[in-house]
Amino acid sequence: MILVIKKEREQQQLDNLIAWVKSLGLNVHLSEGENCTIMGLVGDVSRVDADLVRSLEIVEAVKRISEPFKKANRKFHPQDTVITVGNAKIGGKNFTLMAGPCSVESEAQIIEIAKAVKASGAHILRGGVFKPRTSPYAFQGLREEGLKLLIKAREETGLPFVTEIMNAKHIDLFEKHVDIVQVGARNMQNFELLKELGTMSKPILLKRGLANTIEEWLMSAEYIMSEGNQNVILCERGIRTFENYTRNTLDLSAIPLIKELTHLPVIVDPSHASGLSRLVEPLSLASAGAGSDGLIIEVHNDPSKALCDGPQCIKPNQFDTLIKKLKVILPLVGKVL
Amino acid sequence: MILVIKKEREQQQLDNLIAWVKSLGLNVHLSEGENCTIMGLVGDVSRVDADLVRSLEIVEAVKRISEPFKKANRKFHPQDTVITVGNAKIGGKNFTLMAGPCSVESEAQIIEIAKAVKASGAHILRGGVFKPRTSPYAFQGLREEGLKLLIKAREETGLPFVTEIMNAKHIDLFEKHVDIVQVGARNMQNFELLKELGTMSKPILLKRGLANTIEEWLMSAEYIMSEGNQNVILCERGIRTFENYTRNTLDLSAIPLIKELTHLPVIVDPSHASGLSRLVEPLSLASAGAGSDGLIIEVHNDPSKALCDGPQCIKPNQFDTLIKKLKVILPLVGKVL
Amino acid sequence: MILVIKKEREQQQLDNLIAWVKSLGLNVHLSEGENCTIMGLVGDVSRVDADLVRSLEIVEAVKRISEPFKKANRKFHPQDTVITVGNAKIGGKNFTLMAGPCSVESEAQIIEIAKAVKASGAHILRGGVFKPRTSPYAFQGLREEGLKLLIKAREETGLPFVTEIMNAKHIDLFEKHVDIVQVGARNMQNFELLKELGTMSKPILLKRGLANTIEEWLMSAEYIMSEGNQNVILCERGIRTFENYTRNTLDLSAIPLIKELTHLPVIVDPSHASGLSRLVEPLSLASAGAGSDGLIIEVHNDPSKALCDGPQCIKPNQFDTLIKKLKVILPLVGKVL
Amino acid sequence: MILVIKKEREQQQLDNLIAWVKSLGLNVHLSEGENCTIMGLVGDVSRVDADLVRSLEIVEAVKRISEPFKKANRKFHPQDTVITVGNAKIGGKNFTLMAGPCSVESEAQIIEIAKAVKASGAHILRGGVFKPRTSPYAFQGLREEGLKLLIKAREETGLPFVTEIMNAKHIDLFEKHVDIVQVGARNMQNFELLKELGTMSKPILLKRGLANTIEEWLMSAEYIMSEGNQNVILCERGIRTFENYTRNTLDLSAIPLIKELTHLPVIVDPSHASGLSRLVEPLSLASAGAGSDGLIIEVHNDPSKALCDGPQCIKPNQFDTLIKKLKVILPLVGKVL
Repeated sequence: MILVIKKEREQQQLDNLIAWVKSLGLNVHLSEGENCTIMGLVGDVSRVDADLVRSLEIVEAVKRISEPFKKANRKFHPQDTVITVGNAKIGGKNFTLMAGPCSVESEAQIIEIAKAVKASGAHILRGGVFKPRTSPYAFQGLREEGLKLLIKAREETGLPFVTEIMNAKHIDLFEKHVDIVQVGARNMQNFELLKELGTMSKPILLKRGLANTIEEWLMSAEYIMSEGNQNVILCERGIRTFENYTRNTLDLSAIPLIKELTHLPVIVDPSHASGLSRLVEPLSLASAGAGSDGLIIEVHNDPSKALCDGPQCIKPNQFDTLIKKLKVILPLVGKVL
Repeated sequence: MILVIKKEREQQQLDNLIAWVKSLGLNVHLSEGENCTIMGLVGDVSRVDADLVRSLEIVEAVKRISEPFKKANRKFHPQDTVITVGNAKIGGKNFTLMAGPCSVESEAQIIEIAKAVKASGAHILRGGVFKPRTSPYAFQGLREEGLKLLIKAREETGLPFVTEIMNAKHIDLFEKHVDIVQVGARNMQNFELLKELGTMSKPILLKRGLANTIEEWLMSAEYIMSEGNQNVILCERGIRTFENYTRNTLDLSAIPLIKELTHLPVIVDPSHASGLSRLVEPLSLASAGAGSDGLIIEVHNDPSKALCDGPQCIKPNQFDTLIKKLKVILPLVGKVL
Repeated sequence: MILVIKKEREQQQLDNLIAWVKSLGLNVHLSEGENCTIMGLVGDVSRVDADLVRSLEIVEAVKRISEPFKKANRKFHPQDTVITVGNAKIGGKNFTLMAGPCSVESEAQIIEIAKAVKASGAHILRGGVFKPRTSPYAFQGLREEGLKLLIKAREETGLPFVTEIMNAKHIDLFEKHVDIVQVGARNMQNFELLKELGTMSKPILLKRGLANTIEEWLMSAEYIMSEGNQNVILCERGIRTFENYTRNTLDLSAIPLIKELTHLPVIVDPSHASGLSRLVEPLSLASAGAGSDGLIIEVHNDPSKALCDGPQCIKPNQFDTLIKKLKVILPLVGKVL
Repeated sequence: MILVIKKEREQQQLDNLIAWVKSLGLNVHLSEGENCTIMGLVGDVSRVDADLVRSLEIVEAVKRISEPFKKANRKFHPQDTVITVGNAKIGGKNFTLMAGPCSVESEAQIIEIAKAVKASGAHILRGGVFKPRTSPYAFQGLREEGLKLLIKAREETGLPFVTEIMNAKHIDLFEKHVDIVQVGARNMQNFELLKELGTMSKPILLKRGLANTIEEWLMSAEYIMSEGNQNVILCERGIRTFENYTRNTLDLSAIPLIKELTHLPVIVDPSHASGLSRLVEPLSLASAGAGSDGLIIEVHNDPSKALCDGPQCIKPNQFDTLIKKLKVILPLVGKVL
């Protein structure tokens, strides 16, 4: 971290700052310039509060050189993290397909869809049972009942499943029954929940918040990893902008950038991003081209009857076609299905 | 809610839609146009999923007329909600001042600040003990220990206090000891937490999320109110934009709009919004002019020693001056300090 | 267009509104609801100012059904527009590659690059001579001198070129010498310029503004088309968000949506969007997957010596590799190179 | 400007960089750290292209210390700029009121409003004659005819007027007849127009772009000033965010910040920002509290008949009341009406 120190200052102020920095176990490297003094902080600066430093009267500017995340940082872990779930692998050369309905509605529905997406080649079943809804009056999901149906679908098809957790109270339940634990965009910075997920043995699928930077996203992964759980899968699902034609703006530039910054796998959710089922195929092909490690797609036997998020579901036969096209693109980015 | 139905459709599709709408207990009002049919849904449309309806093949567009929030809606509760906390009143003609440090650091610190802000005329003490921090390595607050110090400060000064809750596990602790329970911006859509806060007897201070619309914010208030707790205080603290000179962009246009939409009190946090202490006074005067019901301000005995968010703290004497100026503005907007 | 009229109103107000609407040559279709009256405006509503209507006391809400753009609207022109420039075709089944340096610097530089990109398979040469720069002190391009160099490069290679116009004064110069006239993001709503471009015989490459919606973008195309010039090529180049790791956020969801909304070709500029040359390949493959009609890429013989925007330039050999990969993807989206 | 140079580099690369920097007339100040080398550039760095530097392989990071604007920079011009227009003064201790209709519609209309706002205490008349409209089919203003009406209104009332210029072709016309030349948000980065405005003798009112940073805004002022015209008035009119209830989000945090960064006056347009006339008063009081140098407000004799932007106009009597309230606030911020 580099601090630019103003010329107009009292020596005492500078001494206080240096003393405080050293008290954090850091070394200080000073170099006098004409209009200012450059102070380099050497050591583990992750405990330095840049906001605090910036607040000091004598500090003109603060520039962090190293990223604030460590366990998630590719610099310290050059090898891709590859996560194994049942027969599926996520990360590295693998391209992983997670598919299923937005919401689990009935045993017949989830089992029919599970069989269909498995037949198409999906590796993991997705289905919401605890639903984050903007309105308290909207359908909140089948909750525990829905979880039982996902377990049945897994028994029937052998597909592991991913579903969202919304409350730390359900950690034991999820630890026992769920294969991949999803954190929704709205809980990306629910730090207390993240810490508890860090104690689980199951992989965590961490969705990007609606208005969070890539760095904040990786810091949330760091929260989970710092508690011990190294199996975090990042999921880009669109950010909020002024554009109204799409519900969110899918940030595909984030994919190649994140692959540089971290060794964790990153997948894309093209369904929630746009909110429009007819955009799922083009955005899925785009995600593959951008170097994504996989996709999580909403597939529904009858979109027009979905209890939620209907517009973004595609039908099994469309999913089938999509996979055929993905198989053509993946070799270009060094991936296999 | 109005649905625009396409001309090119099968009668069966229209009949299905009408049947489904009626199954939700709503009446349907149809009117044939030249290029489309307008379908009006009459009744309680809060349970209608606009996304689902929009997904139907025959639906060209959906237009909601009434707001989706009810308990928070001024249309149904024209009178301002006035919340009483100790000797303080929040809402109506009252302008309420909440002040204190970002973080509680020590007994001496919090008591000194509590006395200072009380002397200046603050009604409520603020101080963070459970701190939401982007980094797992940053100071997370004194937690339970800090709560004890806030209680001591209340005993010493008689000032009720507001502090942030981050985990539903602490509900009982907060119900027993805390005067106003704050929900941070990052938890604004932590729906499971909101539901549990709805069962508390203490007022909830609900901060606006970094990238949430006014409607989503009021829906989060609705979550709390729908569980029984009608005492919700809204707090505008800035939204995230592309502007970098300020940490967030304080959305003061939201204040007069929210006063129209809801009967709940709305206050402003000028400290977090800008992240710059020297902007606190002008933004506070601006908030008063915009019709805010109060302010929540960070005041610190020594900003440069703050353990967090130092840049946005002001000193007691500056707080004193600010209050004198507020007293000139408030009569213009029908408020009293 | 649908107006929702409030119940509480005077008949006179409603009569005035109806009279005014009819004075615009529109028919009115009224239907009484329980809580409001729905007024449908039938006819060419493009001249109705929705802002004005919304301002009327008796109007609760306004909902436009048809898009405000006509000449650019696929509904009225279902066939893809295909633009021919020299041997190149843009739109339809064609995938068009425009490549070259950010700025034209010297005869040697532009001719060397022109030859290189032609050898790789580029169809059109790009190069800036009038440069929009945030700072008046920054290099503003070689201007007229640079234009001469582009003409030389065209003579040498036979490649048509695209370059940006910034001032209506240059219309004659561009009409005479330039093959495709580019409008930069910052001039997307320079309506006076757009009108004059509408009188040109040369195709216009219209970049999306930094914070403009898809609809505003198409309305800017409509400005050009309404003056007679139907050959508009849209170019997505990233929108401004809170994310800092990339200079802009490339909005690839916009591509398939725009292909639905308009018959005009739309290409992607992956270089400016990210501002990082190493993101050009993944974002180019992503653009192809999303259904783009082409790419405009910065290629430079020595990125580290570029006079501007260096970070986003790639080298000819990288461009070569990229094209080989594009050829694998394009058949999946029904395109040929 | 500070460059962070990577450890892994060839000496030749560093030497090239140093040579290039010196070729720009700058001195280089190097200091070796453990993990990197810090290079300070001393001198006028305004001609250094940060993007280019960042692109160099050996550069880890670039940090600009000094602002890129000079003539607009308060550091070099500590005194407030005060601009005189007729009897009106803008900047310094003055609080200036500009008022009038969105669009000039008729001689009767503009003269009636001019008299009304003058009676209330407005210093300058505003009225649009060249109208930037998103749609080519919308009313584009009375143009030259409207300008004549503004001149008549000035003759009748003695009020100087401000109106928007959209085309450099009109520079002479505006130089001859207009008192203050307005640049609309959409032309804030129309650099060619800015340069020509820099040659005028009339003050320029520069509106902030929809999605421009404060720094970009000041750089656009710098464009005008660098050509000789030092009389630039900045106007905050709201930025584009995801919030839909208001048309734009008024960024009042920008006001006190800009007063620090520049000596130029900055006023607020509360009418366009919200798009809602009932928000004009609270946002105007807020602007005064934030330290604005004035306001530009839409006032209309009959909002419901406005040909454009009706929702944001207020009536003369409301304007009258507003001014009385402003007079109470202004002394608090050291201003006089």
